[in-house]
Amino acid sequence: MSDTYSPRPEHKFSFGLWTVGNRGRDPFGDVVRPTLAPNDAVALLGEIGAWGVNLHDNDLVPIDASPSDRDRIVREFKSACERHHIVVPMATVNLFYDPVFRDGAFTANDPQVRAYAVQKTLRAMDLGAELGAKIFVLWGGREGTETDAARRADEAVKRLREAVNYLCQYSIDRKYGFRFALEAKPNEPRGDIYMATTGNYLGLIPTLQYPDMVGVNPEVAHEQMAGLNFVHAVAQAWEAGKLFHIDLNDQVSGRYDQDFRFGSANPKSAFFLVKFLEDVKYDGPRHFDAHAYRTEDYEGVKQFARGCMRTYLILKEKAVRWNADAEITALVAANGSNAGLPARDALLAQNFDRTAIAATGLNYERLDQLTMEVLLGVR
Amino acid sequence: MSDTYSPRPEHKFSFGLWTVGNRGRDPFGDVVRPTLAPNDAVALLGEIGAWGVNLHDNDLVPIDASPSDRDRIVREFKSACERHHIVVPMATVNLFYDPVFRDGAFTANDPQVRAYAVQKTLRAMDLGAELGAKIFVLWGGREGTETDAARRADEAVKRLREAVNYLCQYSIDRKYGFRFALEAKPNEPRGDIYMATTGNYLGLIPTLQYPDMVGVNPEVAHEQMAGLNFVHAVAQAWEAGKLFHIDLNDQVSGRYDQDFRFGSANPKSAFFLVKFLEDVKYDGPRHFDAHAYRTEDYEGVKQFARGCMRTYLILKEKAVRWNADAEITALVAANGSNAGLPARDALLAQNFDRTAIAATGLNYERLDQLTMEVLLGVR
Amino acid sequence: MSDTYSPRPEHKFSFGLWTVGNRGRDPFGDVVRPTLAPNDAVALLGEIGAWGVNLHDNDLVPIDASPSDRDRIVREFKSACERHHIVVPMATVNLFYDPVFRDGAFTANDPQVRAYAVQKTLRAMDLGAELGAKIFVLWGGREGTETDAARRADEAVKRLREAVNYLCQYSIDRKYGFRFALEAKPNEPRGDIYMATTGNYLGLIPTLQYPDMVGVNPEVAHEQMAGLNFVHAVAQAWEAGKLFHIDLNDQVSGRYDQDFRFGSANPKSAFFLVKFLEDVKYDGPRHFDAHAYRTEDYEGVKQFARGCMRTYLILKEKAVRWNADAEITALVAANGSNAGLPARDALLAQNFDRTAIAATGLNYERLDQLTMEVLLGVR
Amino acid sequence: MSDTYSPRPEHKFSFGLWTVGNRGRDPFGDVVRPTLAPNDAVALLGEIGAWGVNLHDNDLVPIDASPSDRDRIVREFKSACERHHIVVPMATVNLFYDPVFRDGAFTANDPQVRAYAVQKTLRAMDLGAELGAKIFVLWGGREGTETDAARRADEAVKRLREAVNYLCQYSIDRKYGFRFALEAKPNEPRGDIYMATTGNYLGLIPTLQYPDMVGVNPEVAHEQMAGLNFVHAVAQAWEAGKLFHIDLNDQVSGRYDQDFRFGSANPKSAFFLVKFLEDVKYDGPRHFDAHAYRTEDYEGVKQFARGCMRTYLILKEKAVRWNADAEITALVAANGSNAGLPARDALLAQNFDRTAIAATGLNYERLDQLTMEVLLGVR
Repeated sequence: MSDTYSPRPEHKFSFGLWTVGNRGRDPFGDVVRPTLAPNDAVALLGEIGAWGVNLHDNDLVPIDASPSDRDRIVREFKSACERHHIVVPMATVNLFYDPVFRDGAFTANDPQVRAYAVQKTLRAMDLGAELGAKIFVLWGGREGTETDAARRADEAVKRLREAVNYLCQYSIDRKYGFRFALEAKPNEPRGDIYMATTGNYLGLIPTLQYPDMVGVNPEVAHEQMAGLNFVHAVAQAWEAGKLFHIDLNDQVSGRYDQDFRFGSANPKSAFFLVKFLEDVKYDGPRHFDAHAYRTEDYEGVKQFARGCMRTYLILKEKAVRWNADAEITALVAANGSNAGLPARDALLAQNFDRTAIAATGLNYERLDQLTMEVLLGVR
Repeated sequence: MSDTYSPRPEHKFSFGLWTVGNRGRDPFGDVVRPTLAPNDAVALLGEIGAWGVNLHDNDLVPIDASPSDRDRIVREFKSACERHHIVVPMATVNLFYDPVFRDGAFTANDPQVRAYAVQKTLRAMDLGAELGAKIFVLWGGREGTETDAARRADEAVKRLREAVNYLCQYSIDRKYGFRFALEAKPNEPRGDIYMATTGNYLGLIPTLQYPDMVGVNPEVAHEQMAGLNFVHAVAQAWEAGKLFHIDLNDQVSGRYDQDFRFGSANPKSAFFLVKFLEDVKYDGPRHFDAHAYRTEDYEGVKQFARGCMRTYLILKEKAVRWNADAEITALVAANGSNAGLPARDALLAQNFDRTAIAATGLNYERLDQLTMEVLLGVR
Repeated sequence: MSDTYSPRPEHKFSFGLWTVGNRGRDPFGDVVRPTLAPNDAVALLGEIGAWGVNLHDNDLVPIDASPSDRDRIVREFKSACERHHIVVPMATVNLFYDPVFRDGAFTANDPQVRAYAVQKTLRAMDLGAELGAKIFVLWGGREGTETDAARRADEAVKRLREAVNYLCQYSIDRKYGFRFALEAKPNEPRGDIYMATTGNYLGLIPTLQYPDMVGVNPEVAHEQMAGLNFVHAVAQAWEAGKLFHIDLNDQVSGRYDQDFRFGSANPKSAFFLVKFLEDVKYDGPRHFDAHAYRTEDYEGVKQFARGCMRTYLILKEKAVRWNADAEITALVAANGSNAGLPARDALLAQNFDRTAIAATGLNYERLDQLTMEVLLGVR
Repeated sequence: MSDTYSPRPEHKFSFGLWTVGNRGRDPFGDVVRPTLAPNDAVALLGEIGAWGVNLHDNDLVPIDASPSDRDRIVREFKSACERHHIVVPMATVNLFYDPVFRDGAFTANDPQVRAYAVQKTLRAMDLGAELGAKIFVLWGGREGTETDAARRADEAVKRLREAVNYLCQYSIDRKYGFRFALEAKPNEPRGDIYMATTGNYLGLIPTLQYPDMVGVNPEVAHEQMAGLNFVHAVAQAWEAGKLFHIDLNDQVSGRYDQDFRFGSANPKSAFFLVKFLEDVKYDGPRHFDAHAYRTEDYEGVKQFARGCMRTYLILKEKAVRWNADAEITALVAANGSNAGLPARDALLAQNFDRTAIAATGLNYERLDQLTMEVLLGVR
């Protein structure tokens, strides 16, 4: 039974295999849910109305699978995707789980590790391409340190650049057509992770060999862990033409990576995010990189995943309402304008009456209260 | 009486007028120290052995000064600088104190405010050039929001770009030869400030009209407020050729802007910072953007300022010692190397023994403990 | 024109003189609003429908007022309160603004400062009693350090205890009938403030001479600055019979003290707070210790103050709705019960089937999603 | 070969089995070190010069061990302890790893879980008593929520109190003589953990049935996760006679639980902590609740553990040096005194010259700089 808040394919809601398949292991506790086979995850996503599924190489293919096992697994997975009308918009590579990556992957001190990490990524690109993905996400979860005695941080930047250039060349050579989306995170599992924020990656990209092929994949939780305003980071990426993908979830600031259900920690910032994405007509996937509480069974996992999509759609409707609210619109219009700067000599000659300009209130308290009332559904 | 830790001009230690002149006002309390006239601040800096002084326009010239007053003030200030052998390596503009900037300066919604902000900056550039400064810092303290209802964040980026382009053009036209250093901060005094981290500015710069003229001015406290590893941000900026200036102080994470004496909150991260700057032979100013505790009189202010420089020099000596320590050197050498990646086909054909690679410990606990012992002076 | 969300006296909404009278000064900027005389603040509060006003001694009476000036000011203020039907439920003392308190008040190292702080508080108690206040709040904003070299932290605890005991004795002697409410804060304006959380004060109170006279005044922003769950702190205080007062506002974690409009930073935690206060029938004042954005004039200040109350009432209605929601009620009922523990020997003999107990999901994702939908007004 | 910084039994350095036995599993990665059998851990601790070992029940005895297996394991462990001259000063219980505790233990909604948690703790107390432990630590890692819809927070307090009372009664009945040490943590693995700070437990204890039997076990990392000053919390606990145990490690604020080597993240706060413990002659165990980086093998684990003890002893020597430094001593003496407050009438009659009192600086910048120089070994 469908309603306004029911997901449809055009909403482009996707989930990682690792999200609905998360088994609830944490630093202090064991797994609480049985393994969910990838094909069963796809079935679950089909059931709840998702559009796409994303994956790390090893979410689907075990790290030591033989080539024939690998091929069979991929074939069956593609078949499951077709059966459940699920696409694979994005693929990525796991460079963090295996002990070999304990000191990093592309930035590890050991050249063998760096080479292996790149080789593993090339194969993950082969896999992603085979599954039809056009976006390739790189999250360097182990690219960091617990002590800066271990490595000069500028060396890490150089190694990272060398690796990303290598991957771009491979995509070109193989005609995969990938767009790479780099995902920042400030810490965890490393004490500090290089490229701590989306901004750091926006700074790295112009120094790459193929900057046009590379953008960012901002994640709500990762930016909010550092207490940063996520919408501002997304807006800068968007304005630079670099918003290639987005990871939606929720997070309380200054804590471990929580990956909560979208909108469940702070619905106000989630509202501004949805409003921004819809206002600018972002047309990429809305990927939920979150997982269910450890208190849940797979029925709860479905509730979790449904909740992510439903909350997005609730907030989307509120964004429409906000844009249509006459009082809000009037307050915003009274706010100012985008008029450009005067020419230099005119500007230098101008006299400004600072006191007069500063005398009138800007009505932002009212504007924000109205926003809250739209959000809370009482307006 | 001089010793190893006494400041000398070649150390390029500079202080802002607003740092030694800070009067101890805070959100909950009144000023505790009398006004320190700019020329007296210069004398104080001369007395304690500093090399340079930096200033916002209104640190020296009152916002409503007449042209003739302005000229007299500048003349006397230059004379004081000469008398005390103090240079002015950097100038900046105050776009945050006056109520006119309560909603931003370059990004304010009111086009009048944006125009006034740019005009004020042009005049601050005139002032800086007259004083011999070659670096112009831009810190947009009011460029932000308390509610994102007030402004689309991508509009703010566009307005900021327009303003910086305008300033670059002016420097070119006037042949001032300025290099602009953009200074990020995540919040305070605004709820959220745009361009929250040094990374965000590194991302903005390549989108400017004159990217070569523009770099960053990372500040310890600003990056650490967000809990980010400052050395990593500095290293990325350095590697990109964008470390045009640096603001040294200290800060406990997740708090109000504390601007503590350099090295006094976390000597370990200060050590890695000094080591990085010295290892790469950064030759710009070491600017202390800090201030004395509110418990101090001007004798305490001198102690504070002396402590900033002395701690830098102590840590610099420890960096030399670290680099020369045979056990440390051996551990670092055993760590790995910068060997490049194999060519593609060779790489794809390679077999890696993950288990073998991951079997040996990396001795980072030992390396870090040795670092601590160098730092604590017991090695 | 009244509606469901209009404030009424029985809601016990109060504001500090310093909240609606906040002039927008911050560490980087000047005041933006003219002084609001206390009697005008009372008129403003009457106009917007508040019930009570609270004050620090010097919010009303200048620190150097003569006795006759003091008496006249108090007389006129009482008259204004009567005229506008505003009560004074709580009084407090300013031990943070004057430079004399730069190193603390009750915990300062200088015995003269400690004595003066207590004397000032006794007089503030006289004032509060004269105005009819029955709650006396103590916020030790300067009781802390920038360096722990300055004072042994256990000495600070002893000094604090001595002072509070002294004040209790005075209230008894003068038959003022005060209940003291101690207000914690982790930092700002000091680097670290002693008694950082509400919990620390709950730990101090049982060690006092008159523990029954002393409770706590938790503040949303102060607990959230440290990233703590405010509802948990309030619940512990309530359960211990120590919730003597409460300060409502909002705050993003890990930042400077923001004192935002109630519910405007995180409506979800505000919802759980209101629900708790209403569920347990807390009948003390709902005090808003917040202030308007610096972008506002006094029209905006009114909007701000109205918004605080209105949001409280919106959330109160949602709490009623949540409690009445059949699906929510069923999920909560299925959650478990308050059954006591078995007697020891029975317990030791019992066999538990851990696997069976852990097999069923707890439906907290569903429960939380329903909560969000009540909050967002779509249920 | 022994030196000043070599551990000796009188230093009372202890490690948990789970600390040196930590295998490096984290939320994003697999174990990196093989299992270290408890008896081998004891041998390792003997080798590096530790005094004691602590344990959760299941660190030693598997959760499903038969009684006879349990007895054999315990017997062999005691023998290993004797062989290596290691004592067991503290025991605790694991109420967080098994899925049965996914919604809490003492505070779980399911009465069966609460009962099982208490039963498991009684047996862990039997085990601890058998091993000679006199301190029993309770860390309620799962006592919390991801959504406050799940449970009223005051109910959690009541359940916690019931459980602790039950355990105290059991210790009395069995004549175990345990002192219980309650360990706070703000979050992780739960979204929010009840009793977030040491202060919260200091507030709970006076409401228990046997308050004298119960104290606290503050942990550096847990208090610093919330950005709180750890020394202040320890000092309050000490002053209240409640410092029954302490967990030493290190942690960067506002992050996941890092459990770094003692003193390695912030040596300055570690210095003030060691100085406090030594100044007040704390004579309980110095327990290191930390673990080696994931980059290490067991040689690195030993380096890690040695580093914890060595850094403690280095800082202890610096505390002696600080106390003996004539300039420091003079500055502290000039600081003020512990003189008590004047009697009421005398106090009310006193005139204070605020301006004069506030005119002189307090030399805290100098005092802190000298502290840094002692810490850095250049004084």
